[in-house]
Amino acid sequence: MQSCCTIHDPTAAVCRGAGEPLVMEEIQVAPPKIGEVRVKIICTSLCHGDISFWRSESGPFSFFPGIFGHEAAGIVESVGENVVEVKAGDLVLPVVQRNCGECRDCKFKGNACTKFPAASLNAMPRDGSSRFLDKDGQPLHHFLFASSFSEYTVVDMTHLVKISPEVPVDKACLLSCGVTTGVGATMKAAQIEEGSTVAIFGLGTVGLAVAEGARIRGASKIIGIDKNLEKFEIAKKFGVTDFVNPTSCGKDSVSQVIREMTDGGADYCFECVGSTSLIREAFDGSRQGCGKTVILGADLHGSPLSIHPLEILTGKSIMGATLGGIKPKQDIPHLAQKYLKKELRLDGFITHEVNFEDINKAFDLLLQGKSLRCIIWMDR
Amino acid sequence: MQSCCTIHDPTAAVCRGAGEPLVMEEIQVAPPKIGEVRVKIICTSLCHGDISFWRSESGPFSFFPGIFGHEAAGIVESVGENVVEVKAGDLVLPVVQRNCGECRDCKFKGNACTKFPAASLNAMPRDGSSRFLDKDGQPLHHFLFASSFSEYTVVDMTHLVKISPEVPVDKACLLSCGVTTGVGATMKAAQIEEGSTVAIFGLGTVGLAVAEGARIRGASKIIGIDKNLEKFEIAKKFGVTDFVNPTSCGKDSVSQVIREMTDGGADYCFECVGSTSLIREAFDGSRQGCGKTVILGADLHGSPLSIHPLEILTGKSIMGATLGGIKPKQDIPHLAQKYLKKELRLDGFITHEVNFEDINKAFDLLLQGKSLRCIIWMDR
Repeated sequence: MQSCCTIHDPTAAVCRGAGEPLVMEEIQVAPPKIGEVRVKIICTSLCHGDISFWRSESGPFSFFPGIFGHEAAGIVESVGENVVEVKAGDLVLPVVQRNCGECRDCKFKGNACTKFPAASLNAMPRDGSSRFLDKDGQPLHHFLFASSFSEYTVVDMTHLVKISPEVPVDKACLLSCGVTTGVGATMKAAQIEEGSTVAIFGLGTVGLAVAEGARIRGASKIIGIDKNLEKFEIAKKFGVTDFVNPTSCGKDSVSQVIREMTDGGADYCFECVGSTSLIREAFDGSRQGCGKTVILGADLHGSPLSIHPLEILTGKSIMGATLGGIKPKQDIPHLAQKYLKKELRLDGFITHEVNFEDINKAFDLLLQGKSLRCIIWMDR
Repeated sequence: MQSCCTIHDPTAAVCRGAGEPLVMEEIQVAPPKIGEVRVKIICTSLCHGDISFWRSESGPFSFFPGIFGHEAAGIVESVGENVVEVKAGDLVLPVVQRNCGECRDCKFKGNACTKFPAASLNAMPRDGSSRFLDKDGQPLHHFLFASSFSEYTVVDMTHLVKISPEVPVDKACLLSCGVTTGVGATMKAAQIEEGSTVAIFGLGTVGLAVAEGARIRGASKIIGIDKNLEKFEIAKKFGVTDFVNPTSCGKDSVSQVIREMTDGGADYCFECVGSTSLIREAFDGSRQGCGKTVILGADLHGSPLSIHPLEILTGKSIMGATLGGIKPKQDIPHLAQKYLKKELRLDGFITHEVNFEDINKAFDLLLQGKSLRCIIWMDR
């Protein structure tokens, strides 16, 4: 169904300033333009990516007032012109990673779609404008092409993945960002082989999803590194076999402990926190000759990484991967199938659930390290 | 044939101080011990790796007096105990990269054999001693487990590759280090796909071997970057399709020029010089989302590389590869077969030939950028 009508007065959780609690506001959501889709969000969850931008007081990553949220599942409400891939009623996930399917990069390799090279992270990618107005008629920023902390949002078709309605909507939501990033990184970015040793820095959702992916791919040892001791019991369920608490290493560095545990270094080290010093530890803990350090965490204001070329020359590598290096439209449905076949476990990631009006509780839980994923139900 | 006799008075080109011309001296070469092989060098060539260490006045990479040379071909003269892989008369190549075939790394992945983890680069790897004495009875340092600037040398079996005698000995010599590094890096370390764009910083032997490898793997564009304009004509023969002279880029950086030539960045950027600033240019010229920067050049005393994690996060990677990431014993014979089948071209790499007593001319030619490989014949 194409639509030309603005939706009046749906509720959105608007953020008006860095670090401020979100405010429930009635907004207006314009109809989707060419290539766009208006989505009724069913549930959304909070990811560390939201927190990073929410804290960003100034600079190019500061988007206020705006509507955060990028991990979600929803139903197509209406489509703009030229949209044939989905229709009203389809279950869809917004994804940060663009995937037009037509550009050189979508067709070839990697997952950095180059269809809209000049797109900002705080507006619609095709025309750079907003589909949201607040109650005073002022535009609100979009966020990472998703803005799922709203009953309705508009998403470009290149940022939308259609998914089987067999998948429970809360599990589908997990595949929209964090879990896909971790599991995807083991399959696409790192391509872990059977028998590999793996070290994971940070046992949040992304880190545990790396563990789940490493388990699926047959890693022989999966070491979890986290200051929060409680994480180890949870982590075991995701395949983590060994645990390192950085505060209990004594005089040894974490990398030294990992090298000892793996007889020379881990084949794969995943940094899932977003700390330059942890990336350095990960690199130092990776195996001489073949160790891959995979950066999955983002620190928007972090310091640069300093590495001597000779440390790399002997065969180590460092790589990054947004959304784990997967191509959303082809790979997320594949992960969903893996879930339906019980090959990929998703249930353990959901630790809390709240109603939309309690969204700030989800922030508190994540900031206090108490939750993995808190599902925020829009209408329950 | 096992041997218990020292060879008296063979000639070696000994280096007695950093940057000094080599001196032809009569030396003594002890018999091979357990797991070792004594090799009569037929020809050797000069590689930039020799130059880097030859210049090294102090520190852990300074080995004087010693016998340089690590790219060579020779004939097995005699073998020590427990050597069954080769016998007297076999054509063999010394290789810097160890390959025991038994350790976890040799069996699994990468090419950093971990059989002798404590081995120094200036002695026999198994017992840390020397097989060379000078005319005063003083030991001479080994170099990179090869020391091929000598009529006879002793090499550990883990550093020796047997090769088909069908391969002309001077072409075999090329496969001992430089050409294998470049070609190997396109196949093993980088794994270039058909249709890829490739940028090569530095068109010496390694860089041109990268071009040859990229051509074999079907790269669609191969950009050579070198200050020496004469290199372009030579480079075309190895598959280089485009040329950038850094001194003619005007206000633009080389990376900017590469991004323009490749509509966003090269899929693969190879740094074959050993300069941290060029690694940075290579990284900046690599493609967002999937660009791999491969470090093949070594600067023993260079500065660290500074990169912001966010620059990597979006999908770029940096990797290093000694000997191109290949496993010598399995992959060098494979490259030799490719040469025999005329799939791999080696002829163009040999630009000069000298007799052993003129070895210092080979240094001059390489230092002046006039030669690719100068074959040094031991007995012609």
